[in-house]
Amino acid sequence: MSFTAYILDVISDSIYPARITVENGLFTEVTPILVSETTKLDVRGLMIPGFIDAHIHIESSMITPAQFAKIAVRHGTTGVVCDPHEIANVLGIEGIEAMIENAKQVPFNFYFSAPSCVPATGFETSGAILNSSEIEYLLKKDEIVALGEMMNFPGVINGDEEVLKKLALARQYGKPIDGHAPLLSREELDKYLAQGISTDHECSNILEAFEKKMKGMKIMVRDGSSAMDMEGLFNIGEGPSLIENPESLGLIYRDIFEKKIYSPMFDFIVSDDKHPNDLIKGHLNKSIKKAVDLGIDILKAISMVTINPAYHYNLNCGAIVPGAKADYVIIDSLYDFNVLETYIGGECVFDGENVLFDAPEVESRNTIDASKKTASDFDIHYDGDECEVNVIECTDGDLLTKKTTAKLITKGGIVQPDIYQDVLKIAVVERYGKGNIANAFIKGFGLKKGAIASSVAHDSHNIIVVGYDSQEMADAVNKVIDNQGGISVVSDDFADSLPLPIAGLMSNEDAHVVSDKLAILHNMTSALGCQLEAPFMTMAFMALLVIPSLKISDLGLFDGDAFEFIDVIIN
Amino acid sequence: MSFTAYILDVISDSIYPARITVENGLFTEVTPILVSETTKLDVRGLMIPGFIDAHIHIESSMITPAQFAKIAVRHGTTGVVCDPHEIANVLGIEGIEAMIENAKQVPFNFYFSAPSCVPATGFETSGAILNSSEIEYLLKKDEIVALGEMMNFPGVINGDEEVLKKLALARQYGKPIDGHAPLLSREELDKYLAQGISTDHECSNILEAFEKKMKGMKIMVRDGSSAMDMEGLFNIGEGPSLIENPESLGLIYRDIFEKKIYSPMFDFIVSDDKHPNDLIKGHLNKSIKKAVDLGIDILKAISMVTINPAYHYNLNCGAIVPGAKADYVIIDSLYDFNVLETYIGGECVFDGENVLFDAPEVESRNTIDASKKTASDFDIHYDGDECEVNVIECTDGDLLTKKTTAKLITKGGIVQPDIYQDVLKIAVVERYGKGNIANAFIKGFGLKKGAIASSVAHDSHNIIVVGYDSQEMADAVNKVIDNQGGISVVSDDFADSLPLPIAGLMSNEDAHVVSDKLAILHNMTSALGCQLEAPFMTMAFMALLVIPSLKISDLGLFDGDAFEFIDVIIN
Repeated sequence: MSFTAYILDVISDSIYPARITVENGLFTEVTPILVSETTKLDVRGLMIPGFIDAHIHIESSMITPAQFAKIAVRHGTTGVVCDPHEIANVLGIEGIEAMIENAKQVPFNFYFSAPSCVPATGFETSGAILNSSEIEYLLKKDEIVALGEMMNFPGVINGDEEVLKKLALARQYGKPIDGHAPLLSREELDKYLAQGISTDHECSNILEAFEKKMKGMKIMVRDGSSAMDMEGLFNIGEGPSLIENPESLGLIYRDIFEKKIYSPMFDFIVSDDKHPNDLIKGHLNKSIKKAVDLGIDILKAISMVTINPAYHYNLNCGAIVPGAKADYVIIDSLYDFNVLETYIGGECVFDGENVLFDAPEVESRNTIDASKKTASDFDIHYDGDECEVNVIECTDGDLLTKKTTAKLITKGGIVQPDIYQDVLKIAVVERYGKGNIANAFIKGFGLKKGAIASSVAHDSHNIIVVGYDSQEMADAVNKVIDNQGGISVVSDDFADSLPLPIAGLMSNEDAHVVSDKLAILHNMTSALGCQLEAPFMTMAFMALLVIPSLKISDLGLFDGDAFEFIDVIIN
Repeated sequence: MSFTAYILDVISDSIYPARITVENGLFTEVTPILVSETTKLDVRGLMIPGFIDAHIHIESSMITPAQFAKIAVRHGTTGVVCDPHEIANVLGIEGIEAMIENAKQVPFNFYFSAPSCVPATGFETSGAILNSSEIEYLLKKDEIVALGEMMNFPGVINGDEEVLKKLALARQYGKPIDGHAPLLSREELDKYLAQGISTDHECSNILEAFEKKMKGMKIMVRDGSSAMDMEGLFNIGEGPSLIENPESLGLIYRDIFEKKIYSPMFDFIVSDDKHPNDLIKGHLNKSIKKAVDLGIDILKAISMVTINPAYHYNLNCGAIVPGAKADYVIIDSLYDFNVLETYIGGECVFDGENVLFDAPEVESRNTIDASKKTASDFDIHYDGDECEVNVIECTDGDLLTKKTTAKLITKGGIVQPDIYQDVLKIAVVERYGKGNIANAFIKGFGLKKGAIASSVAHDSHNIIVVGYDSQEMADAVNKVIDNQGGISVVSDDFADSLPLPIAGLMSNEDAHVVSDKLAILHNMTSALGCQLEAPFMTMAFMALLVIPSLKISDLGLFDGDAFEFIDVIIN
């Protein structure tokens, strides 16, 4: 196939008319041509390389890889480096291989990383453990292009043997190691980097990014659903503001900033997590526009989702050059940046109207091994009229929580939640056959009645539930068990659920169906009094122990600062 | 080991004072520090990453890898990506492994590529053939970081099965493929690139580099002994001059150049070949200074020999960052750029005075299997008084030759050379036990008497000899045979030789000894009337059939334009 078009060359940062030939899925000819006023090119619009998301967890979109591909190509995305970290916590290698298998059946470039930290901690029950021998098994696969984000930075710094083994394996197999090191700095950062970890997507301020960049990391600017760091990183202002609070890094950078030694600092734009309701609106195409609004040169922004990830992960795509995969997008203009058509391996996969491939289903099997619960499973007993309790205090969309306390009364020996203080009950129900339940209290959800439950609960994905009434909490959890995973809302007025039968994380439905259902559940939750923008997401992170200060696992209430369990009842 | 120094950070293009810690050969801490007027840093001078030559054939230096390392560290070089292509033509896998073995014994970073084109053509007798199964054997080795320069571009373009197999293997093993495609352009270049070939070191003009760069190649600017492209590439002038002769590329780039769409175009500075007399004077340190004289930003020039090759070949060095190998150089200043000290893996290998390691020898074994020659072996017979002959016309230091003719007289049925026309005799003596000798005539050497011979004769490295008198030619060749390789000069006044007993290509002596001896032989050759700047190098390329127009192998006189043998005597 040969045709003529204006192309964007991300290597020379230039735009020129060219004759393009595609054979066997590769660009085999890219010849600049002369055009005059009257030349008619075959392609209307500008041909640019397809976008690559260098770091994403597909599971957060609650749809299968194949369904993800179907919605992503509408936005010009042609490839992702994805970390199947969530399904790995549920199903281990089997889950990862199911993702790879499903991904292979659609014309889209899925590159996988081997999840490095499964489970996230030893303080919870997960469905699987990936030790270094499983990591080696994965690293041998062609589909695996990297070792996934090394979140266990204390393990790296303190020289945990199993952690170091995984890192050594990645180096041995010559595959890059992704990092995840929020606010890690100075000597500790150096120790982390000394293991060959080469990217970070957790930078939330410019000083942090600057230090990491200087020390050799490639910086991923995150523009996702749960974390949006782009504004903070790209909106760098005039410079002096950068050193207003230099104490944060012990003054060490004042010298550099005052001398205004400064250079291009960001390598990739990534989404990390993209929820279905966001994903239907856009992906990297939207992030590029946003970056441009923040003052980033559009060619630089495009490089961050094309040639940069391709070079880093050694992918044969990301540029319109001979020998590269013919993954490209036709946009109307750099200004409007609307995706008109998307091509992968030279084949049109999105014609501006329809996506031209089907999404095969992932076969789901029962992954929830838990008996039905009763109201009494969610009762917290106390022998007295009133007690003081530790309470998780959450903020909308924030992974961090605060540790607070409340005074609660008891009724028949059972501690009562208090909607006037907005202190509700939260529980984690183990789902892998062990039968654990941990109960505690939470502030911030604002439910006046009813209960919400979900099998999406980072990272072990046990069933998490928040509610006022023990029976409704049991009902909500039982609905999730009945559905073999998903999200449910229960009250005396209504009840509904979104089944996520694939590992309790994903649906075979398409992104719009899942997004619509989620919107219904969200509206119901709002009707029950919850003011959170993203209640299910916020709830899902209440079980993520590695992010402080107070969280909950199936084994109990967990103090993330002291990194140990604490009692719910204080006195 | 911890110390403080001003460091050059090639990632952020900045210079700042830092505390550095080195452990187990790696940088494990790089912490910027505050300095005041009175702070005394441990290191005087500027600490910069050690230099990496991304493309070199060690054999051209006529010394072993270990000896190469000893001289290179004096110039701040700490690593090379080397293609053991010459020894591979003589000894195959065994030769490559001998190079790797010797390289391992010194503290220097030798990264090897698997020679892709051994032998260069089927029109000569080489000592070994590397087919795709040998290439696979090599690509599996950790020491092999790339597939070496694919010189057989006709084979790539025409889809030679064995060539394509080698390229596919490199892609399969995830190792970059180096290119070598002088003046290849447009559709042919595209076909070449479609095989995944990613570098080129043969660009001799800016348009050529521009096209290759735009099409995704990384451009190596060559500053070596036999080819010096840097002036032509870096001295880019104001722009309009670039399109003075746009016909060379069929006008297709005028559009681009007129719009002055132009961006950084060069990725690496490499030497390709570095002869001993040049190598003792400098290596990449000299190239950086030269690049700066030509107007290239010094930080950009340094990146081209540090971080750029490290990223491309996936090497864990090239920057002063935690996790990278502690390979660094102390220079006096960016302006003077004198190398004060060189460190590899954190160990001082050059203290400004002495190189702090020894060079173990490569065990040499006899590789020249040829019987002694007599004068009559070099006679060309013709039955008549006078004849017209084809003559190779060479130019100093040029790999290209012209095809010319001359009228010569005969004596006793033997065609006589003619010093008045400067038409001498040239012969290639097969050295691998087959006994072939090919005789022809050559113009340009200017010898008035005597003969010079060498076992360095690209790429098959048979023994090549140029002279006036058949007996002296036989004596010169026999001296090379006696020495089991090397270079010899013979005349009735004097005779001397440089033994190169390792595959007939290298000596175990150090660079200065070899360079001094070479200078003596060069002076002798000049005394015999030769005006060439580099007579032995020029002679060595007379057997390189792939570069036109007229060359000679052990099988006969070869027309490189028609790619076939031709007769010496025309009528």
